Amino acid sequence: MHGAQAALPMVALARRARLASRTLAQSSSSDRDRALWAAAAALRTSSAAILEANAQDLAVSQAKDSFRDRLTLTPERVEAMARGLEDIADLPDPVGQVRDEWTRPNGLRIRRVSTPVGVIGVIYESRPNVGADAAGLCIKSGNAVLLRGGSESLHSARAIHAAMQEGLRAAGLPEDAVLIAPDADRRHVADMLGAAGLVDLIIPRGGRGLVERVQSEARVPVLAHAEGLCHTYVHAAADPAMARRIVLNAKMRRVGICGATETLLLDAAIAPSLLPQIVADLSEKGCAFKADAQARAIVPELPAGNEEDFGTEWLDAILNVAVVNGVDDALDHIARYGSSHTEAIVTSDEATAIRFMNGVSSAVVMWNASTQFCDGGEFGFGAEIGIATGRFHARGPVGVEQLTTFRYEVIGNGQVRS
Amino acid sequence: MHGAQAALPMVALARRARLASRTLAQSSSSDRDRALWAAAAALRTSSAAILEANAQDLAVSQAKDSFRDRLTLTPERVEAMARGLEDIADLPDPVGQVRDEWTRPNGLRIRRVSTPVGVIGVIYESRPNVGADAAGLCIKSGNAVLLRGGSESLHSARAIHAAMQEGLRAAGLPEDAVLIAPDADRRHVADMLGAAGLVDLIIPRGGRGLVERVQSEARVPVLAHAEGLCHTYVHAAADPAMARRIVLNAKMRRVGICGATETLLLDAAIAPSLLPQIVADLSEKGCAFKADAQARAIVPELPAGNEEDFGTEWLDAILNVAVVNGVDDALDHIARYGSSHTEAIVTSDEATAIRFMNGVSSAVVMWNASTQFCDGGEFGFGAEIGIATGRFHARGPVGVEQLTTFRYEVIGNGQVRS
Repeated sequence: MHGAQAALPMVALARRARLASRTLAQSSSSDRDRALWAAAAALRTSSAAILEANAQDLAVSQAKDSFRDRLTLTPERVEAMARGLEDIADLPDPVGQVRDEWTRPNGLRIRRVSTPVGVIGVIYESRPNVGADAAGLCIKSGNAVLLRGGSESLHSARAIHAAMQEGLRAAGLPEDAVLIAPDADRRHVADMLGAAGLVDLIIPRGGRGLVERVQSEARVPVLAHAEGLCHTYVHAAADPAMARRIVLNAKMRRVGICGATETLLLDAAIAPSLLPQIVADLSEKGCAFKADAQARAIVPELPAGNEEDFGTEWLDAILNVAVVNGVDDALDHIARYGSSHTEAIVTSDEATAIRFMNGVSSAVVMWNASTQFCDGGEFGFGAEIGIATGRFHARGPVGVEQLTTFRYEVIGNGQVRS
Repeated sequence: MHGAQAALPMVALARRARLASRTLAQSSSSDRDRALWAAAAALRTSSAAILEANAQDLAVSQAKDSFRDRLTLTPERVEAMARGLEDIADLPDPVGQVRDEWTRPNGLRIRRVSTPVGVIGVIYESRPNVGADAAGLCIKSGNAVLLRGGSESLHSARAIHAAMQEGLRAAGLPEDAVLIAPDADRRHVADMLGAAGLVDLIIPRGGRGLVERVQSEARVPVLAHAEGLCHTYVHAAADPAMARRIVLNAKMRRVGICGATETLLLDAAIAPSLLPQIVADLSEKGCAFKADAQARAIVPELPAGNEEDFGTEWLDAILNVAVVNGVDDALDHIARYGSSHTEAIVTSDEATAIRFMNGVSSAVVMWNASTQFCDGGEFGFGAEIGIATGRFHARGPVGVEQLTTFRYEVIGNGQVRS
């Protein structure tokens, strides 16, 4: 099927995206916003075509239950995608912001200015709306985007992509700023991961298998959400009522999101009185437990948890429980089992809170708040493309500002270096 | 030689460094500065031992000329290393700085605080002083460092390392915060590059071969200086005297540094009058040229340059010269041949300068200044570990601030998410 010319279609697409990215990087904020508004309108006017394409995908899909639900589009979901693009358009321009500025003794003015990244590759699985969201965030931040959707949502993804390109055309921007893999050939992923110099950043959106493959194979930087094995540590000086409220919310508000607490670390000094109450609160909502020996000594009916349990991101109504002896013990536990995503401490003692916040390597650390607040909307970022768990560039919620990088602009009046 | 236990000595060292990094991340700025002062003192008191170790290295080295010079230590160079550590100690603390702060409608206070990266792996070649500089910058920024020096400088590097550990001990900090590969086995490099989860960042300091190997093999983030193929574009509206002064400095001040201009892009409108003068200025200083056809039409004695020349980082007294038709043509040339390091425009026209600055993807862009200003000292960063040419995290000069990352601290009073 593949001739010599068409051997690496993704590389050819990446080259086109690279060229378009240069135009986009110099485009005005108003043109990019116009493209988003026009794309939203195009999604609405092509709603019937998008739903028909989606019906084609569903007809051949083997997916069941929640996987099938993720793949399914409805008129309401198409409208939500359109509204999402308009919300992105309403955000402040993340490009060209002066983040820092100073003048050197020789008169050189140096400023750090936010700039688009260039070409962003987004590899996603079944949810077709990811294509619209990702394209919207990339256009807003002046980046070209190369999409590679899953095989299950191929027709839906193409129909959405057509609307995005219609938006770009309407604003006079190059339609190559949003490109999509021509089919679901798996080697398109490998080609994207190896396209150093053409693709500047890869964002995988999907399950652990996809993320791990991308992280291990990519030859370009990856902004990935690995695991969210979040801890809530209730210190001896915690307000008990606040602790109960926060633990209940941190675990049970939504159990399937990455910011959900997976492990409760309870200080030995407060555990005898507090653990039975927390167990009662959460049991009532249907939570199960995996507890260490100290916790089981206090509430004997708790099932025993092992090493593996404490290292498991349940994403379910299951809470690991360990009793710890002070903040250092809690920090040791987190260093051993944590995933550097989000941790929380509940305490009324400021010195302990500071010690805890300085002692974790996580992207986000909460003091007297629920770990479920780790979210772009809750941070005030507007739309987000995910949560980053790496140590660099964006950590935590990734919104449009996190899809920019920066350059130094050095402005002189003829200075030469001595 | 290697038993099962000792199979991966670098991984064992990385684990120790990881543990030490937790202590260092929580250490006070004054303790870290004390360690730097004590390490400087230790370098001075062990100067004789360091020079003796260096003599051992030199005795077996096959290196000649400039390579031998890089390897050679003198009392003055040991003193310069010590002074370098003291200069680093004098810098402001880069850790714990609040870089951004805002309050959400629900009362949550969110702040972005600079934090150490964790464990930084530094892979370097012959210059033994890199070990002291890198360790100093890492200690200052609260990071543990794992050093892997070249085989040529093994004894010198070990002697320097001993002084660094003496400094850490004197300040009550863990000596595992600065560790060094036990020998020059090449697989230590591979082990470091694969130590995801133990090493957070790799910085290669050396020639192109080393950097390319690290970039292609690393399974952890890399902060690397690839190429510095810098351009200076002289626009039609440039002040001719300023243009001559800047081009001369940008090319000839020091030809071997990465911020040296390799290619002059001269606007067609100004080339007939200016090119002969620039050629005369630079020829007088011993510069050779590789020129395109348009430039040779103006100064026929210029040797012809080809595609390969325009893509070559000479690091020598050779200047590529191309005549371009306006700023877009200049931007096209840079997009094709540039390495995203540093570019400069000389012009008195602000709109063109802005267009140029927005149109390059480089880490640093200069307006009316010499590209040779791309330097941590010139930027006011104090000491630097190198220039980063990637698109993320640190771009341009890498000083202590660039060896930090950040966390979000979210401070509530019991908020739960609805």
